[in-house]
Order: sequence, then structure tokens, then C-alpha cells
Amino acid sequence: MEKAEIIVIGDELLIGQVVDTNSGMIEKQLNQIGIAVERTTAVHDSEQAIMTSLTEAFSRVDLVMMTGGLGPTKDDITKTTLCRYFGTRLIEDESVKQHILELYKDRPQVLNSLTATQWQVPEACTVLENRVGSAPLMEFSMNGKLLYSMPGVPFEAEVAMEEQIIPRLKQLRQTNTILHRTLIVYGIPESTLALRIAEWEDSLPEYMHLAYLPANRMIRLRLSASAHTDNVQLSAEMETRLATLKPLIQDYLIAEDDKPIEVLVGELLKQKGETVSSAESCTGGKIAMLLNRHAGSSSFYYGTVVAYDNSIKQNVLSVEPSTLQTYGAVSEQTVRQMADGVRQLMNTDWSVATSGIAGPDGGTPDKPVGTVWIAVSGKETTLAECFHFRGSRDQITTHAAAAALILLLKQLNK
Amino acid sequence: MEKAEIIVIGDELLIGQVVDTNSGMIEKQLNQIGIAVERTTAVHDSEQAIMTSLTEAFSRVDLVMMTGGLGPTKDDITKTTLCRYFGTRLIEDESVKQHILELYKDRPQVLNSLTATQWQVPEACTVLENRVGSAPLMEFSMNGKLLYSMPGVPFEAEVAMEEQIIPRLKQLRQTNTILHRTLIVYGIPESTLALRIAEWEDSLPEYMHLAYLPANRMIRLRLSASAHTDNVQLSAEMETRLATLKPLIQDYLIAEDDKPIEVLVGELLKQKGETVSSAESCTGGKIAMLLNRHAGSSSFYYGTVVAYDNSIKQNVLSVEPSTLQTYGAVSEQTVRQMADGVRQLMNTDWSVATSGIAGPDGGTPDKPVGTVWIAVSGKETTLAECFHFRGSRDQITTHAAAAALILLLKQLNK
Repeated sequence: MEKAEIIVIGDELLIGQVVDTNSGMIEKQLNQIGIAVERTTAVHDSEQAIMTSLTEAFSRVDLVMMTGGLGPTKDDITKTTLCRYFGTRLIEDESVKQHILELYKDRPQVLNSLTATQWQVPEACTVLENRVGSAPLMEFSMNGKLLYSMPGVPFEAEVAMEEQIIPRLKQLRQTNTILHRTLIVYGIPESTLALRIAEWEDSLPEYMHLAYLPANRMIRLRLSASAHTDNVQLSAEMETRLATLKPLIQDYLIAEDDKPIEVLVGELLKQKGETVSSAESCTGGKIAMLLNRHAGSSSFYYGTVVAYDNSIKQNVLSVEPSTLQTYGAVSEQTVRQMADGVRQLMNTDWSVATSGIAGPDGGTPDKPVGTVWIAVSGKETTLAECFHFRGSRDQITTHAAAAALILLLKQLNK
Repeated sequence: MEKAEIIVIGDELLIGQVVDTNSGMIEKQLNQIGIAVERTTAVHDSEQAIMTSLTEAFSRVDLVMMTGGLGPTKDDITKTTLCRYFGTRLIEDESVKQHILELYKDRPQVLNSLTATQWQVPEACTVLENRVGSAPLMEFSMNGKLLYSMPGVPFEAEVAMEEQIIPRLKQLRQTNTILHRTLIVYGIPESTLALRIAEWEDSLPEYMHLAYLPANRMIRLRLSASAHTDNVQLSAEMETRLATLKPLIQDYLIAEDDKPIEVLVGELLKQKGETVSSAESCTGGKIAMLLNRHAGSSSFYYGTVVAYDNSIKQNVLSVEPSTLQTYGAVSEQTVRQMADGVRQLMNTDWSVATSGIAGPDGGTPDKPVGTVWIAVSGKETTLAECFHFRGSRDQITTHAAAAALILLLKQLNK
């Protein structure tokens, strides 16, 4: 099976200013054609660091993917470093030049002497088209070793992988089969789960591997398999294994698809032709964002009121002033009225509401930081549940938004 | 100056399932005490991969930070691998055991034979307290080489760095001075900016370095300096340099602090004692999330209506049906009424509103995907501006949310 390494280049990645999301995107795409990533390395915009990491990577694998350092400014040195590594020189590429002139034809003010360095490319490489940007997309091939250098801008890197590099790799390399199947469980601690399924896990063949991926109180159980057999046979074998796993975890199983919860919710709503809205206090719009982040969400998601201030809970969501006075904003009574209120206001079939203490301040002995009330309102019934989350402000609100969608998913599945 | 490397461990990091945010957090914290990270490597939960990367890292630097692979399940093998690397064995640690029993005293169902492996630690290491979790926090010291192994759970890793590792490093190592100063510019292409300040950049001394960090149409210009001199002198020297840079970029300079735009907005609002709300269509809650993500936001942020469906724009935000009919939802007229509507509904001093086409569907020749109208409403005036963003759905909405806050920031600065 072909193995690859990724080298991501940029000072900004090594001082914590920018989080590298390119390597994850590349890993996913390579995985789908049966290429496994062995290692990802982040290095500075430094000729020596890039040369060393390249030499090391090619001592272990025959395929290296590289991102970053292709901009027009002084700190971008990947292109000249690659010239040195492959013993070649920069030449002007007419097709890259035409592409860049075309790209900026509506914004001629962007063109200048630095932009012009963008159509200088190493003579020894094959230039692939970067449809959405000006940095060159380069393929180097030498003695069976293959290197792709792509822009660090995430959107450009993604288009480069999808439209250019993956099709090239399918052409150039023999690929293996790697399959993943994921079950999502909720409400069971990781170690309890591991003990419960230990025997099943031990019985897996060598070419299958189970991973526990906990996040937001869910655990994704990912079964991976890699083999030279064809997809259909391997897939069937995995299904047989999973069929014996499911009865062991059925009380906690909430989904059998490795999709985000909001996608599972959206699919069910579309299937039923129903709609949803949300009323958010502590989650502050996170549920809204999850519900509308995917294309097509306008068919089931109507809107949200983020009622941060209590006046909004009263005036917009019609929470009774006496409820807020008697029970407080973080209470079962308030969150139920918020859910019912937004469902009426927006005229949707379903709604979810949250009210809690995200911290770091505002906790009391009765209602410590992390206390979150969540309600799901439907045409027939309104449910409410109290949660206690741990962690930072961001983690508490992320947990709460996920829990709200899980509660809704369970109601939709009933 | 001390240099470090980071090794992050976990299969999930190499198939694109989980994005590593720990290395960025560690880099930031090490930077603050003058330790520069040279390289970050992500490897699988594999004994061989961990051993190799450790050997390589220690051949280059004397300080290695490691995250992950410390859970109780089969796929977590960091602890046994470290035993092999340092030629030691696992022993039971009574204080870790007591800490774990205390941690789970309210949830005894979590304790089982796998949890018990959590208080097995390598004999040769110094165990530091993991206040917020059960995995051990380990320090290995050998022939001047220093290794820290911490949990992969981001919250636990962050607490470990802040409370345990940084104080230890200050004790154990001589540290250098690294300073960063950032200016934020908006509305100028990167290469135009680079040409405009090329002479200034060329005149920088060797120990100062300028980086261009473009994101959401802003460019952060980060000046870094590293030296053995004291903080005060180096900092003064940087200010002198910046004083000659600012006149060159004053038309585009929107902030002189490396803070997120929403923090700058929040600081100004607090200072003025004013409040803000938002009405969001295409941004779907992103502005709300930005405005309330930091502690203390409840003093200036009141709430948001995410008006995804047109009925919400009419019924909740009081946009005239005739406006929607005549001009459409994505229009200057609609976005102005949305902004004014939410400001009245929520009774705030300011509001921002967005309406646009996030894509990938819904574009027309007149209003292609990426067209976004943004309005800022204040007591005296309502401004509206049309933007054309490129990229994916997520990028378009992220750009739009940032642009809305930048418009608001400019109004607040007037």
C-alpha cells in the first residue's frame, strides 16, 4: 500500500497563529484513494528546514505533499527551495502568466512586480492548473519519487487536491483499498465502552483496526480496514463484524454514519418535510450555525433568536417575566418557554432552546459554571433536560450545542 | 535561544478526522517564555513511529513536547513506548491513584480495570498533576534532554501547559526574549502592500522579521524580534521601527493590537457604554458567535435574530413585504431594514445586518454566489455596503461576518 507524508510550511503555523487544516483535508482525500499518510510535519519558511524535512520524508516514502510558502512576498521561499532540491531553475511559464492575467482582469490594481514572480516556476516541474488562485501548483517526479507543492490557502489547496492532484495520482499510482465505517455512541464513558466490547475488538483480524474518537460527549467508533481485496468484499466483511458489535452498544448508538449530528438532523427533517428554529442564550448562535452551515439548509431551518439579554427573552421570545423572576434565566421553566416561544414566533415544527452558564464567571453553588438547561419543543410535547458540562467557555457552549442537536435527533428518531 | 519540537500522536490526526489544535496552543505558550518551536510532527499511535520521531527530534533539539496516546484504551500506547525509549518500566503511582479516585468520586461507574491502568506510570519520570483529567502528565529528564508528555484532550493539555509545564520550564531553563507586534490592515492586496513597504522591510535588522498573515481580507503584519537583550529595550526598538511603518499604511490600518476584531469591537463598546445586536441571514449566527464568544460580552451584546427564512425577516424584523418583493432579500433596502429592525426590537445603540448568497446554489447573473449586503445601524445613521466574496460557503460567511464587524469597528472609531 502506498504511503505518503505531508509537509506544511509557514512560520505562522509554528507560533500558534494559524491552525493547519490543510493536512487533514489532504489526509482525507488521499485516504479515499487508498493512500495512507504516515506523518505530517510543520516547518518554518526556512530553506534548511524545508530541505531537511524533504530529504527525511523521501527516505521513508515515495510520495510527499507540500503546502504553503508560495505567495509573492519575501517570506515565501518554497519555490526557490524546490529548485535547489531538484537541481533546477526558475523560468517564466506563459500559461501560468495568462491564467494570472485572466484571474485579475477585473482587479488590475493587484498586478505588480511581485505578482509577476508568481509565473516564475521551476523548469523541472509539471505545472498543474490552480483554477482559483495565482500561486502555481507543481508536480515533481524523479526516480519514482513524486512531490506535489500546493498553495497554503485552504480553499485553493482543497480545489487543487480535488480537481488536479487526486486525478493525477489515480493515473500515476497503483492504489490499495482503505475503508472506514463509523458508529456514533452517546452517554457511555470511553473506558466502560472499551470493556464492554473488548472481546469483540480482540477478535478483529489483523487488517482491521478500531479507534475511539471522543468529542462533545459522543464517541465515534471508527472501524478501519485495509487490504488488497476489492472494495465490495472488504466492505461486506466489515458489515458482518459491525452486525455483531451493534447489539453490544444498542442502548447508546445514536447514528451509523460518520456525519456531523447537524447533517443527520437535517436529513431527517428533510425526509419528514418538517422545519426547525432555535432560541439560544448560552450557546449564542452555535446551534444556528450548525443548522445552517451546510448547503440546502434553508429548506428545513427557519431562524434563531439569540436571546443573550433577559429583555430579549421576554420581549421577543415571550418568556413570562414572573418565570424569569421566580426561577431565573437558567431554569427548566425558562428554557421550556424559550423553546415554545421561538417555535410559535417562527412557526416551525420543531425548536430547540438553551440557557446556561458558560463561564468563566456567573456560576453559583446551586448553578455552577457548566450548568445548561436544554429544551426541545415539538407539536406534541416539550422536553427539557439539565446538563453539567466541564471545560472552557468555548467547550461548554460547544458541548451544549451538540447535546441540543442530539436531543432533537432522538426526538426525530422516535 | 532554546528550541523545541512538538510531537502529536494519534491515528485520528492522520486521517483528517480531528484537527490538531494542541500544537498551536503549545507554540504560543512556549513563545511567551522565549522558546521557539522548530518543527511539529504528527505521527500514528505506533511504537515505531513514536520512537523514530523522538530520536529524530532529540537529535535536533533538547526539549520535546508530546501530546496524545495516554487514554485507557488499546490504541493508546504512548506510556509503554516512553518506557521503552527511556529504558524504564511502569509502576503504580499512589498519588495519581488518589487523584483519579477523587476525580471520579461522583461518577464511580466510570472506574474499572481500564481506568486502573491510568495510575500506572513510568518509573523514571516525574509525574506532574493533571488537575482536570485522569491521564498522567509526565516529565522525563536525561542528559540535558527534557521531554513532557501530556494528554491529547485540548482542555487538559492547555491546563497542563499553563499550570505545570510553563512554570517548570521557567525553573529549569534559561530563556530568551521573543516579542511580536501586530498591525492589522484592511482593503489592500498583499502584493501591493509588500511593494509599498519593501524599503522599510529591507531596512530591518537581522533579528527582526516581518510576516504577512492574510485572513478574511485582512492582513496581519506581524513584526517579530528575538534577542538576548531585555524585553524593555527590544520592545522600544520595535516601536521605533513601527513608528516609521505606520505612515506608509495609515489608510488601511484598522488596529494595532493582535486581537480578534470582535474583541476590539467589544472593548470600544464597553468603553462607550453602548450595546449591539445583529440580524443575520447568510451569516447564520456567525456574527452572534463572534460577539459573544468572549467572557464579559453580556455587558454590550444583547442578542441576534437569524432570519434565514423570509417570513422571519418580515414578522420578526419588520422588513416591509413590498421591499422583499421589489428588491429581493439580498438588497440594500432589505439589509438596511433588517439592521434598523433588530436595533429597535432589541433596543440597542448599534446593530449589524447581513443578507447575501452563501452558495453553492442560489446565485444569479445579477447576484452571483458571494454577493453580500451588509448594514450597520446606529442612532444617527445607517450605512450599507455591498461585498463580493469568493470561496466556499463557509469562507463566504466567515468573510461576511468579519466585514460586518470591521464596518462596525470603523463606525465606532469615528
